[in-house]
Amino acid sequence: MDLVAGIDIGGTKTKIGLVAKNGDCLQQSFFRTQEFENFDDFLIRIKTEIEALEAKLDFPVNLIGCGIGAPNASSRNGTIENAANLKWKGSVPVLEKFKQHLDVPMRIMNDASAAALGEMLFGNAKNMNDFIVITLGTGLGAGIVANGKLIEGYDGFAGELGHIDMTLGDGRLTGLNVRGGLEAYVSATGLKRTVLYMLCKYMDESRFRDVAYNDLHGEDITKAAEEGDPIALKAFDYTAKIMGLALANFTAFTQPRAFFLMGGLVNSGKWILDPLQTYFEDYLLEVYKGKVKILTSGMEGKTAAICGAAALIWEEQN
Amino acid sequence: MDLVAGIDIGGTKTKIGLVAKNGDCLQQSFFRTQEFENFDDFLIRIKTEIEALEAKLDFPVNLIGCGIGAPNASSRNGTIENAANLKWKGSVPVLEKFKQHLDVPMRIMNDASAAALGEMLFGNAKNMNDFIVITLGTGLGAGIVANGKLIEGYDGFAGELGHIDMTLGDGRLTGLNVRGGLEAYVSATGLKRTVLYMLCKYMDESRFRDVAYNDLHGEDITKAAEEGDPIALKAFDYTAKIMGLALANFTAFTQPRAFFLMGGLVNSGKWILDPLQTYFEDYLLEVYKGKVKILTSGMEGKTAAICGAAALIWEEQN
Repeated sequence: MDLVAGIDIGGTKTKIGLVAKNGDCLQQSFFRTQEFENFDDFLIRIKTEIEALEAKLDFPVNLIGCGIGAPNASSRNGTIENAANLKWKGSVPVLEKFKQHLDVPMRIMNDASAAALGEMLFGNAKNMNDFIVITLGTGLGAGIVANGKLIEGYDGFAGELGHIDMTLGDGRLTGLNVRGGLEAYVSATGLKRTVLYMLCKYMDESRFRDVAYNDLHGEDITKAAEEGDPIALKAFDYTAKIMGLALANFTAFTQPRAFFLMGGLVNSGKWILDPLQTYFEDYLLEVYKGKVKILTSGMEGKTAAICGAAALIWEEQN
Repeated sequence: MDLVAGIDIGGTKTKIGLVAKNGDCLQQSFFRTQEFENFDDFLIRIKTEIEALEAKLDFPVNLIGCGIGAPNASSRNGTIENAANLKWKGSVPVLEKFKQHLDVPMRIMNDASAAALGEMLFGNAKNMNDFIVITLGTGLGAGIVANGKLIEGYDGFAGELGHIDMTLGDGRLTGLNVRGGLEAYVSATGLKRTVLYMLCKYMDESRFRDVAYNDLHGEDITKAAEEGDPIALKAFDYTAKIMGLALANFTAFTQPRAFFLMGGLVNSGKWILDPLQTYFEDYLLEVYKGKVKILTSGMEGKTAAICGAAALIWEEQN
């Protein structure tokens, strides 16, 4: 059976799976990325995992390729470059090195762009030519599809929408030291920062007056909103407002048919999605109103990142 | 000889030209758009002009098509919709109506998008797959090319970058009532508004303390900068700063190889372009630094808009 190895390299975990043409992930595993100081040791571990997964299947596997999603990956150069959350610094020639260990067709791409390809091949964006996937985890990532093709950019770094500044250079700093960067507001981390901002700005009673920043978790903010905590409600409203404005701005760029949201912040459900919908329509230019949908990803769950990475190879088989 | 009629419908003038395959505009004319309350009369006038231009040539013309650039045009619908600077309100079915008068292949597109096609076919973006044309006149328009194709969007309204808000909803209003809209800062009009802002913010002596807003002209601001007028210098610096931030944001979207600037504000030359270059590089994410050029259009001059419109048809002949 023809299968693709989908590999998602994250700051914490590296996930590996064997993915069939229909998007089913037949086997999967993960290990901790940070265990590996040496990048070659890391690649050897990936190869070992792939072989172990193949052995678990009770039919012969024809590995037709290997797709990799990673932060700060350049699809054109086959590299990971200066990733803030990974140990390997500078420009890491991922494909060049991995080909020394495994001789199959390989592609690497920014994880959010891979997610967009996954959404197009296996998820809710089938037959859609213009859409944007937004990942809302520790940061904010984006995969942009226009004219039916992923926008990769001149050397493969398009879609860094988490680092767009919407404050005229006068806002919060992101991890990349970008002032006013969107992900400092709109992401799981951004929501936590906004809880602090609201605790500072208002004097409402709140359960979060007894919680330190490092003990704040997204689920607790959702739970507090359900209980009517005024700081949690204000934090969701503020996050939704900035996100609504951001998605309205993005619409003016490529006029997508839909946005697909995925990642931790989406788990807050209606607390973020309902006000987001209202602010978004309000901020949209007249000519776009009522035309652009905000949807959740059809790839949610443990294998979304793996299938997105595998889509890099399956896309080329069509 | 095969020729294309290129038509640029502007708020003030409508320009018409006959354009050869190499981008040469062999004949051209214009008339005042506002003379025509009735849209059909307007189309009949265009047809008459095309015939008059054909008659001026001393060889037989084979008109192979008609390309139209206009504000708020939808390429997918063949319409102009709610254009702020045109008399005809609502959704105007341009192609459907014009085909009743002239039976040749026709396309219509947002004027800035047409300019981008012109740049790709006839100008400085030949063989470039990823670039953005920015028009800086009364407003700010954009034509975005990625993967070698113009981004039109779901129903043809992509590229409205003049109405992106970079102030978290707390800035100047544009003509479309968008708060914080980019063109309220970065355009020929935006520069004039910034002169007022600087006269208000600072108490420097300036020739502009004796000039009313409606008497302010871009050329005078350039001349004042040459003479060292502190308000003019501050206005250019502020405009360049916001524009640098905006182009850095746009880079994070599609990672273009280059921006091509055209329109009135570009005529201010080094006063805008030099500080723009500095701010732009400063605001760029690390991964983009040194990779993205800011260039002036190769289409500057009277026939740029006409040739851009004609490119809509010539593009399809390749």
